[in-house]
Amino acid sequence: MAQALARGVLRLTQPVYAAAFAAVAGKKEGEGPMGQCFDRVEPDSHFGQESWEQAESRMQQETIYRAMEKAGAQPEQIDLILAGDLINQCTSSTYSLRPFAIPFLGLFGACSTMAEGIVTGSLLLEAGAGNRAVAATSSHFSTAERQFRYPLSYGGQRPPTAQWTCTASGAVVLDKETTDAPRIQGVCIGKITDLGVCDANNMGAAMAPAAADTLTRWFRGTGTPPEAYDAIVTGDLGEIGGKLLLDLMMKQGYEIHSRYHDCGVLMFDGDRQDTHAGGSGCGCGGSLLCGHFLPKMQSGGIRRMLFLATGALMSPMLVQQGESIPGIAHLVEFVCGEE
Amino acid sequence: MAQALARGVLRLTQPVYAAAFAAVAGKKEGEGPMGQCFDRVEPDSHFGQESWEQAESRMQQETIYRAMEKAGAQPEQIDLILAGDLINQCTSSTYSLRPFAIPFLGLFGACSTMAEGIVTGSLLLEAGAGNRAVAATSSHFSTAERQFRYPLSYGGQRPPTAQWTCTASGAVVLDKETTDAPRIQGVCIGKITDLGVCDANNMGAAMAPAAADTLTRWFRGTGTPPEAYDAIVTGDLGEIGGKLLLDLMMKQGYEIHSRYHDCGVLMFDGDRQDTHAGGSGCGCGGSLLCGHFLPKMQSGGIRRMLFLATGALMSPMLVQQGESIPGIAHLVEFVCGEE
Repeated sequence: MAQALARGVLRLTQPVYAAAFAAVAGKKEGEGPMGQCFDRVEPDSHFGQESWEQAESRMQQETIYRAMEKAGAQPEQIDLILAGDLINQCTSSTYSLRPFAIPFLGLFGACSTMAEGIVTGSLLLEAGAGNRAVAATSSHFSTAERQFRYPLSYGGQRPPTAQWTCTASGAVVLDKETTDAPRIQGVCIGKITDLGVCDANNMGAAMAPAAADTLTRWFRGTGTPPEAYDAIVTGDLGEIGGKLLLDLMMKQGYEIHSRYHDCGVLMFDGDRQDTHAGGSGCGCGGSLLCGHFLPKMQSGGIRRMLFLATGALMSPMLVQQGESIPGIAHLVEFVCGEE
Repeated sequence: MAQALARGVLRLTQPVYAAAFAAVAGKKEGEGPMGQCFDRVEPDSHFGQESWEQAESRMQQETIYRAMEKAGAQPEQIDLILAGDLINQCTSSTYSLRPFAIPFLGLFGACSTMAEGIVTGSLLLEAGAGNRAVAATSSHFSTAERQFRYPLSYGGQRPPTAQWTCTASGAVVLDKETTDAPRIQGVCIGKITDLGVCDANNMGAAMAPAAADTLTRWFRGTGTPPEAYDAIVTGDLGEIGGKLLLDLMMKQGYEIHSRYHDCGVLMFDGDRQDTHAGGSGCGCGGSLLCGHFLPKMQSGGIRRMLFLATGALMSPMLVQQGESIPGIAHLVEFVCGEE
């Protein structure tokens, strides 16, 4: 059973473990500063498939296989899978999962999906829905660009606030059985937050208020200060959104700067790789959580971590209709070792 | 805690109640055989908004308000909301929910969303995530047609297998507190099932195998025969998918014909309303569950019911790329009165 400390701020009384995790990424991500952390870097952006959509599905599928393999689990030993992505009707996930025949709950949280999947999956295991669940997500530069912005061949100029959708995928096997793996000790379910940002090329600004809301609710609800954590990690706020988050948190009385990391900032060397405000996409936070941060917890480099993935819950059509972009952020508290 | 009887087949040990429910529908639905069951029928297909997308959001928002009002709950008394819809990036839900400031988990299950929300919401309440949750969904003929098939003004000919996306919305307030309302006693989480149907104008055929899989797993896992239920209700298989389900269930040794209803078949008078194989869309099953079946349970007309909502997890792009259409079906067992 989880204990509700405040609305959506939940402490797990029976911890759930991130028993295994895997990350697969594309060529550009592999050439970035984090390139060494992925289980595999695929040089072919089509992943051997005929379309980009099929490529993203294949990448996510491979990531899930790798995570299950590390957990020593066959698909029939997984009780539940939770997945989602950015592509219309979440087909990167639903087509990826066809061969597995695992009970499936489809999620849509835009780039917050990695955290949404871990939050929901952990709570469902707490509820008795099974012993092992997989949370997975992915994004692909070429599927996302043509869907959300311009056809790639149009060669549109990207403004400095724009982020670069990562070709990457992450998958975590959640397990109730005690191991020495990082454990999920608490979660915070995000609220939709919309401060009126209308610029689909400035996602960081649209998402930062949601991240600040979730993080503040977590600190207040649990009574834990930022200093309790070795790392506070966001998914893909990028350079601009990340700075906004630090400011917004200062206004709430929380200094998180010294322990703050954003996967979008970490993913690329912006000057060399021409990625402007940083990486983005469900796979950005998902792949660095699974490829970098969880392994770092396991090797003792981080003991307590907050992972927040933020999502811009917009569609191109609604933005074209003049609507602003609602954001959301879900949070997972990971702890490794003795309390 | 839930008890897992088989993978994804779960018995709730602390029942969750469908404490309140509401349904709002459009003009054509209001003129159909079920027209009297909705809380409100809106004659303006724009719901007073400027775009169809905004109209769908407004309809879903109103439905949620009505359900909360019937439950005597303010938004701040709801611990969690789960919602999703058919429109790209689920914006009908995310834009609808902006004013509520309730912790939110976005779902994508296509037309299975009403059941997916109740399944997930009930289990999360079991997990201790709060006392009250809302599950909601919607669909709109005009948003869906132009996104999934043709621009409305193109006036394309509809084949006899085509279904008519309902302009309708349903919302349920789930509550752990004991009332005389219908209670959720068990759930079955669907698996992705793809038998190779590629025709986006024959959704019923794409979804029927998923419904048969879920229903068979439920009967086997719980050891309950079809005769234990007064009603076995699917969301929107329509005329063709419904018949396929009856056949597929017979092959598994289950005769469900005498207690079977499909919301897609019930929604319209096909001959008079020119709706071909029946209604479809998240709002079809959602609105008839909330407007017809749950009220009928409350008035004593149905004591035990299985509600299965089926989803076709496809996107137009993947169908254009020649992919087949994966289906899914989630199941909820409702019981009213003493066991």
